[in-house]
Amino acid sequence: MAEFSEEITLEGHIIDSWILPRVFDAVMDLGGTFDLQEIRVGRHKDETSFARLKIVAGTDVQLQRILTALQDFGAVLVSREDVSTQPAPCDGALPDDFYSTTHFPTQVRLSGVWMDVTGTEMDLAIVVDRAQPRAHMVPMAEVRKDDAVVVGHEGIRVIPLQRSRERELFSFMASDVSPEKPKRLVIEEIAKQMRETRAHGGKILVVAGPAVVHSGAAPFLARMIRAGFVQVLFGGNAIAAHDVEGALLGTSLGVALHSGQPIEGGHRHHMVAINTIRRAGSLRKAVEAGILREGIMYECIRYNVDLVLAGSVRDDGPLPDVIVDMGVAQQRMRAAVQGVELVLMIATMLHSIATGNMLPASVKVVAVDINPAVVTKLADRGTFQALGLVTDAELFVRELADALGV
Amino acid sequence: MAEFSEEITLEGHIIDSWILPRVFDAVMDLGGTFDLQEIRVGRHKDETSFARLKIVAGTDVQLQRILTALQDFGAVLVSREDVSTQPAPCDGALPDDFYSTTHFPTQVRLSGVWMDVTGTEMDLAIVVDRAQPRAHMVPMAEVRKDDAVVVGHEGIRVIPLQRSRERELFSFMASDVSPEKPKRLVIEEIAKQMRETRAHGGKILVVAGPAVVHSGAAPFLARMIRAGFVQVLFGGNAIAAHDVEGALLGTSLGVALHSGQPIEGGHRHHMVAINTIRRAGSLRKAVEAGILREGIMYECIRYNVDLVLAGSVRDDGPLPDVIVDMGVAQQRMRAAVQGVELVLMIATMLHSIATGNMLPASVKVVAVDINPAVVTKLADRGTFQALGLVTDAELFVRELADALGV
Amino acid sequence: MAEFSEEITLEGHIIDSWILPRVFDAVMDLGGTFDLQEIRVGRHKDETSFARLKIVAGTDVQLQRILTALQDFGAVLVSREDVSTQPAPCDGALPDDFYSTTHFPTQVRLSGVWMDVTGTEMDLAIVVDRAQPRAHMVPMAEVRKDDAVVVGHEGIRVIPLQRSRERELFSFMASDVSPEKPKRLVIEEIAKQMRETRAHGGKILVVAGPAVVHSGAAPFLARMIRAGFVQVLFGGNAIAAHDVEGALLGTSLGVALHSGQPIEGGHRHHMVAINTIRRAGSLRKAVEAGILREGIMYECIRYNVDLVLAGSVRDDGPLPDVIVDMGVAQQRMRAAVQGVELVLMIATMLHSIATGNMLPASVKVVAVDINPAVVTKLADRGTFQALGLVTDAELFVRELADALGV
Amino acid sequence: MAEFSEEITLEGHIIDSWILPRVFDAVMDLGGTFDLQEIRVGRHKDETSFARLKIVAGTDVQLQRILTALQDFGAVLVSREDVSTQPAPCDGALPDDFYSTTHFPTQVRLSGVWMDVTGTEMDLAIVVDRAQPRAHMVPMAEVRKDDAVVVGHEGIRVIPLQRSRERELFSFMASDVSPEKPKRLVIEEIAKQMRETRAHGGKILVVAGPAVVHSGAAPFLARMIRAGFVQVLFGGNAIAAHDVEGALLGTSLGVALHSGQPIEGGHRHHMVAINTIRRAGSLRKAVEAGILREGIMYECIRYNVDLVLAGSVRDDGPLPDVIVDMGVAQQRMRAAVQGVELVLMIATMLHSIATGNMLPASVKVVAVDINPAVVTKLADRGTFQALGLVTDAELFVRELADALGV
Repeated sequence: MAEFSEEITLEGHIIDSWILPRVFDAVMDLGGTFDLQEIRVGRHKDETSFARLKIVAGTDVQLQRILTALQDFGAVLVSREDVSTQPAPCDGALPDDFYSTTHFPTQVRLSGVWMDVTGTEMDLAIVVDRAQPRAHMVPMAEVRKDDAVVVGHEGIRVIPLQRSRERELFSFMASDVSPEKPKRLVIEEIAKQMRETRAHGGKILVVAGPAVVHSGAAPFLARMIRAGFVQVLFGGNAIAAHDVEGALLGTSLGVALHSGQPIEGGHRHHMVAINTIRRAGSLRKAVEAGILREGIMYECIRYNVDLVLAGSVRDDGPLPDVIVDMGVAQQRMRAAVQGVELVLMIATMLHSIATGNMLPASVKVVAVDINPAVVTKLADRGTFQALGLVTDAELFVRELADALGV
Repeated sequence: MAEFSEEITLEGHIIDSWILPRVFDAVMDLGGTFDLQEIRVGRHKDETSFARLKIVAGTDVQLQRILTALQDFGAVLVSREDVSTQPAPCDGALPDDFYSTTHFPTQVRLSGVWMDVTGTEMDLAIVVDRAQPRAHMVPMAEVRKDDAVVVGHEGIRVIPLQRSRERELFSFMASDVSPEKPKRLVIEEIAKQMRETRAHGGKILVVAGPAVVHSGAAPFLARMIRAGFVQVLFGGNAIAAHDVEGALLGTSLGVALHSGQPIEGGHRHHMVAINTIRRAGSLRKAVEAGILREGIMYECIRYNVDLVLAGSVRDDGPLPDVIVDMGVAQQRMRAAVQGVELVLMIATMLHSIATGNMLPASVKVVAVDINPAVVTKLADRGTFQALGLVTDAELFVRELADALGV
Repeated sequence: MAEFSEEITLEGHIIDSWILPRVFDAVMDLGGTFDLQEIRVGRHKDETSFARLKIVAGTDVQLQRILTALQDFGAVLVSREDVSTQPAPCDGALPDDFYSTTHFPTQVRLSGVWMDVTGTEMDLAIVVDRAQPRAHMVPMAEVRKDDAVVVGHEGIRVIPLQRSRERELFSFMASDVSPEKPKRLVIEEIAKQMRETRAHGGKILVVAGPAVVHSGAAPFLARMIRAGFVQVLFGGNAIAAHDVEGALLGTSLGVALHSGQPIEGGHRHHMVAINTIRRAGSLRKAVEAGILREGIMYECIRYNVDLVLAGSVRDDGPLPDVIVDMGVAQQRMRAAVQGVELVLMIATMLHSIATGNMLPASVKVVAVDINPAVVTKLADRGTFQALGLVTDAELFVRELADALGV
Repeated sequence: MAEFSEEITLEGHIIDSWILPRVFDAVMDLGGTFDLQEIRVGRHKDETSFARLKIVAGTDVQLQRILTALQDFGAVLVSREDVSTQPAPCDGALPDDFYSTTHFPTQVRLSGVWMDVTGTEMDLAIVVDRAQPRAHMVPMAEVRKDDAVVVGHEGIRVIPLQRSRERELFSFMASDVSPEKPKRLVIEEIAKQMRETRAHGGKILVVAGPAVVHSGAAPFLARMIRAGFVQVLFGGNAIAAHDVEGALLGTSLGVALHSGQPIEGGHRHHMVAINTIRRAGSLRKAVEAGILREGIMYECIRYNVDLVLAGSVRDDGPLPDVIVDMGVAQQRMRAAVQGVELVLMIATMLHSIATGNMLPASVKVVAVDINPAVVTKLADRGTFQALGLVTDAELFVRELADALGV
């Protein structure tokens, strides 16, 4: 039988971080075999390890598929050729063999030199500008005809997150979404991380759903904004409309926030709130005109939080500030996540997944929802940086505000 | 076609409480028809209403079935005969046509006089002692041969809860288990009810599952016990074992309560805790010997809370205080719920359902769980007295302790 | 104390349908009182009832609020004045006192004549053209400056659905979403309704999420399309992309559909699928070019199903057929639901809620999801026409295809 | 600083099975350090690996704790001393330093010879009989005063399951409970495993909850029993009572099984069913008397399935066959699982967890529930042998019966 083979190397905390066994798995899952040519295991916790493997497959297609898979674990081809590119066939589409990015830091080899690819994000293409030289991750829809798009797997290096030996919040809870664990400790730790992030000027992003308002947590989120703990806020029409409803009419989805009782006829209130802002022209104009005087939206405008409200097909109205074109909304969000180091996703699946897709793996993510399925989906990002909490949105936000002392 | 008919009357807030339309439904669902002979509708909110209906069916069996169904709505036969009984055929079993109780107050007619049936509880039989005279609800297994067991539906009157015109907590949230409602208001209202209950000497029962301990809420429940807000506590082996584990070893299910981190080898801890108490002989002896010095169990013993730990087939050990015979456990629980006016069911389905089955409809119930399905199941008792909260057990208990000022 | 009062009448199955007690509730909840001036209760199940009430409130504002609430129950003011309108203050906004529609059939009184309002949908405004004369429900964003918008509550009549005495599927299961009920019977009943709907030319709409594809149910939905049981299909980018991925690459989200095993490197597959269709230009062009040869999308194009793919902010790509402007997407959906009599919502919350918002109350809705919370949210439309099923999407679709004999 | 150290060895597929990295983790989590003295990594997939580590800790207590933890990964002390025992201090309790078992095969060293410990089960003690010699796992409650109980960690060897290189059902789905995966393939695979198990005489155990009956799946389970696919059945009072209710009265919890509609007065039916069997004396007597003529219980008795009905504190009645003493119930279940190779847990948490606790890790387990949290809890047994399916109980059982051709 003909054999197709290639040598790869792996380096780092490849045993601690379970990279080596996952490489073995991947090769065999894809029908290949390997020969471990060389291994050096770090003998102390600070020493890294090294492995050199010969990967063998029955066909070249199979070998290429294995090498593609191993790249996500940081495998580097010993051959060390330059990255290959092909021109985009038309605006908004890619050559067939395009390389699809991970959310890990990535390098490409150009003229024999490894160069960082900017704009780390999952499921994008890499466009190379050999003249500069530079390489950037680009969404499929924004690729232009004849852009030099990276194809195949030669000359690409992914740097997977390696597991920190230090036990820390975003490590130990990673795969743990149980409602049965003590939350108080975790919330205090999140508060500590938020203070540290702000101390060195990192940005904090909050992605919030309407349950934050319905549940009465809006005043606590407003306090966090006033105290400077929120630089960017993502949401949709619903959270903004109900927040305005609360500020103008004292209800959320027609339920009185001060008593929890539904108001007869209150189902009309969110329409009144939306209409009021539409008449004013925008949230900012409503604030300036003294119409909107409290709430999350009010504080965002007052404290210049970078507010991106992305629409959806289920929206009533919508508010004039809501971006109805999804391409534009993604561009605005993509721009706003630059510099974000910590993300709180609270009680919203749609906007949280949209945000998660845009984040490099190194950004810390806290996903909070009362539904374990949502938390699992959000926290399951294949990294050690996501923390899932199955808990009540209101109580979480209040406790966090308390822990932050705001 | 032969017709079988009977006249019934309904009285009270039968329109406000939706009793009349439900009676119409029931008759038609069971294939009967009705003729509304007389109706007087209260013209103000304090006036009661009255209706007299002729119920008509094609067979006597069908008529009896309809009358049985209407009894649960408080329908009274105009004929006004005495209750019928038959002797129990053997110990622990009933005559075929036995009347199965509801959890509403019930009366039987003996020698022309309506008399209260004691021991209100769902799904029991009624045993009559004509000599005394008295009538008592009795579990099937405790009926003795030749006891006079109520059969059929003559001479039985059920008094369904009628809906209070006053809006109150245990009314307006009844069918409402959403995690999206403000919890703070509800928790304050529960605290208020607890204070009122204690002020007039009513008992409060807490039914708690092990998640109360795992989640770090045990110290807050302990405070509530010390402050006199818990007279009865129901649980199983797990909550007691993990509470003791926390007191002795600082972990719950092997997870350190002070840090939330799993302890390697900690899976053994609950076995150590159980073994320690088994060696001491009982929880009380362990407290007296100075071995057990904190936690929920410790406070229960110190403050003479009526503690019933009912076993289950999944128990490890179990602790010597756990009742392993389910018949005995039910008897102990049935005795302990006497005088209970308010029940908090926290993060346990098995013991909560067992408790719910034993409560008269007039007892107020708060059911708390992070799983909406559990809350729905617990709160769905066909009354206006149950309040379901979809929320985090830890945060709920802490907030409640705060609201009680303990 | 000054009193403000107004007389209203109610007519129909107002006791069976629980309308009268809900009216009493609403008046008292809003702080008013009522005097029951006249009542005639139907004495047989076919006779309707009639009531005349004097509603009394302490202020005019309160009275208006009560009357607004009662309108949703079909209350008609005895005074019988014409409907009032005010001009829209600008494009896309309404006068402050605008009437917000329900999803029930509605009439307005113009020059003393009751006239049907067309375009029944919840949370819209009513625009009157007195010249024609006609009245139409219009989304806020589509109202133009100076349109005559209905305000207040005079001259508006809502016809709430009255409860059918005949037991039928879309009645008896309405509030019942338990996974513990027999599904087979329900699925057969749905199949029967689908056949009846098609027999008289009614349209069937399927709203489907990507889990339909992931779970392997696509071939069964495809069969239903081929057999003519789907006239309209709503979805998003995800279901379309994964359906195409399945057709082109045999996987869904990188999991092989024939074996259920994840393919290493398969996370790239949906990007390949999207890229392929983008290169082809559209789904239709891909079908015509022989690239796309099976699956849900293929059958929709082949059988001229009215396909609306509405985008969202989380979309990769998206496919060229996906509508990225949410206003346009809503217009397309609103047009497509005309003539729809039965809707199956399968495993998608976003698109299902969007659709539900656009449906008149008379359209039958079946909502299927494995998450009870989603089903409750979708089925809770305050009508007797929605049926919630907590079950597995794949097994549901297969059983339904079986029951339809396709 | 004083150092306490010990040498251990690890052997087998310790890299593929992620044992080595987990050992590194455990040592550091517990505050120790290690020195990798020797490592030999298998160079092909069939070669095993070997590692020798020196474990270092600051105190002896810490060292012992680390060694205890490592034992679960199969670590063997190089020192190779005999196992230590201490006499049980009294009936039903253990010496303080008792060894708590895992559900993996375990050996102890007696007089220099490694000997299998019988009765593999989690959280038990090991009692040694040096005279025979033999070693057996024993529940705490069944230990008698002066039994020789294994303590410490010398001379104990645990053989963790090592991961098969062959992809198979009970491996690849292990951690995967998503409702979004194709079920049909999985169900066919389960059917295949059931046929193979029966072909070589292995026993199949079904643990079933009442939803199996409520949902209408009982006839399909009955068919599986008749066809010889169930040797042991575990359940509680509820499934048995509702199965009898179905057989005698055609309802389950008062809902008609042929129509899915609730029967007015049907809430009494399960009490009637229980009473009927209590009068007959037992399920078997009811079958023999011709009273019980169909259903799951009927088939179990007819086909001599080993039926264990374990009671709970929530039971009505209970049926005379229900074991009310939990200690006795556990003994009966423990005896019945001998020889069981495959377990189906369907829609019951309590009895499934109880069963899971008694199973050696090598037994294959399929856990089916519509609630993902239950499935996660059941499937999370730290092995590669458990398969969790989030799906509908009825549809699962029907599809499985189909796949088995019964």
